[in-house]
Amino acid sequence: MPHIDLPAEYPGIRSLFVYRPETAEPLCHLAQVLLHDPHPTLSAGERELIASYVSNLNTCKFCTSTHSAIAKHQLGSELSLVKQVLADPENASISDKLKSLLKIAARVQSGGKNVLPEDVEAARKEGATDIEIHDTVLIAAAFCMYNRYVDGLATWQPDNEAFYDKMGEQRKREGYKPTSINFTLTQELQKS
Amino acid sequence: MPHIDLPAEYPGIRSLFVYRPETAEPLCHLAQVLLHDPHPTLSAGERELIASYVSNLNTCKFCTSTHSAIAKHQLGSELSLVKQVLADPENASISDKLKSLLKIAARVQSGGKNVLPEDVEAARKEGATDIEIHDTVLIAAAFCMYNRYVDGLATWQPDNEAFYDKMGEQRKREGYKPTSINFTLTQELQKS
Repeated sequence: MPHIDLPAEYPGIRSLFVYRPETAEPLCHLAQVLLHDPHPTLSAGERELIASYVSNLNTCKFCTSTHSAIAKHQLGSELSLVKQVLADPENASISDKLKSLLKIAARVQSGGKNVLPEDVEAARKEGATDIEIHDTVLIAAAFCMYNRYVDGLATWQPDNEAFYDKMGEQRKREGYKPTSINFTLTQELQKS
Repeated sequence: MPHIDLPAEYPGIRSLFVYRPETAEPLCHLAQVLLHDPHPTLSAGERELIASYVSNLNTCKFCTSTHSAIAKHQLGSELSLVKQVLADPENASISDKLKSLLKIAARVQSGGKNVLPEDVEAARKEGATDIEIHDTVLIAAAFCMYNRYVDGLATWQPDNEAFYDKMGEQRKREGYKPTSINFTLTQELQKS
């Protein structure tokens, strides 16, 4: 049961967006820029993998399930690939550059000072640019916020995998506009 | 030395705002809503104390020094009060309600799932409302992001206490508008 009185028909961070639209706006805007807007070199799918990987390290079911589904749709892959990245990135079918960025993301998750010059050097050797390193650190840091927000208020987190898959497809299509996130939700839950 | 090529004349998160204005916008907007805009019941000084307390738990010098100085100016107090809150909140001269909210903030800092129903119940007994609990959780979560962002890219963090004090006074006056944050900085550093 949530720690505060949240609208019962909305799960996870969506219930918080409806509860406090003043903070929903910048929180959605940040996700839009980091994960959905065009990026010079990192695909939306790669950025969603970083988000999902950090959410899994923080054991946040809602964010892990949501961003795994978005990653799947953005990459045009199977969910099994995403699950492999979460469980064992070193042996997953992703680029060596992305593996090195996931290592930086894991450092950030455990604490900002844990990112070492050698982690950054290793990523550069795989071709990572400054903006890729910057965005990896900020995506990882941002999910240390979103995950704590969702779990720290004990929001409702459905077990229904089909629900997360629909949400993943929708986010791929529409991005993180706060209006689209809230407006279509009831329909989605009814369909799932 | 920063892990990426940041503008050398800007310290801490400001160097990151200049480097990546697309993410600076929502990051400043979030701080503005959480810490500076009018709140039904929590003063800006109380909210800055929560930000400073969490930043200190995350050992982020730049954010702790900055938000301690803003808290001092917002509260119209001495810096010694803020330092007492950071070191020993239970015996600091603050309300019992704020002490209970700081306990929730510390739980969030250590992980979202660590916030227990009894922590929330204890805050309610001191008169905390839903929106106060919500905003405490989100401020604590957001500083788990800002702190990791600032330290995860190894930004330059000055030791000059007078610089942080000037910044604290400026933030109290101007809030967190990205333009004011970047535009006046060179002048401040020259004066400090």
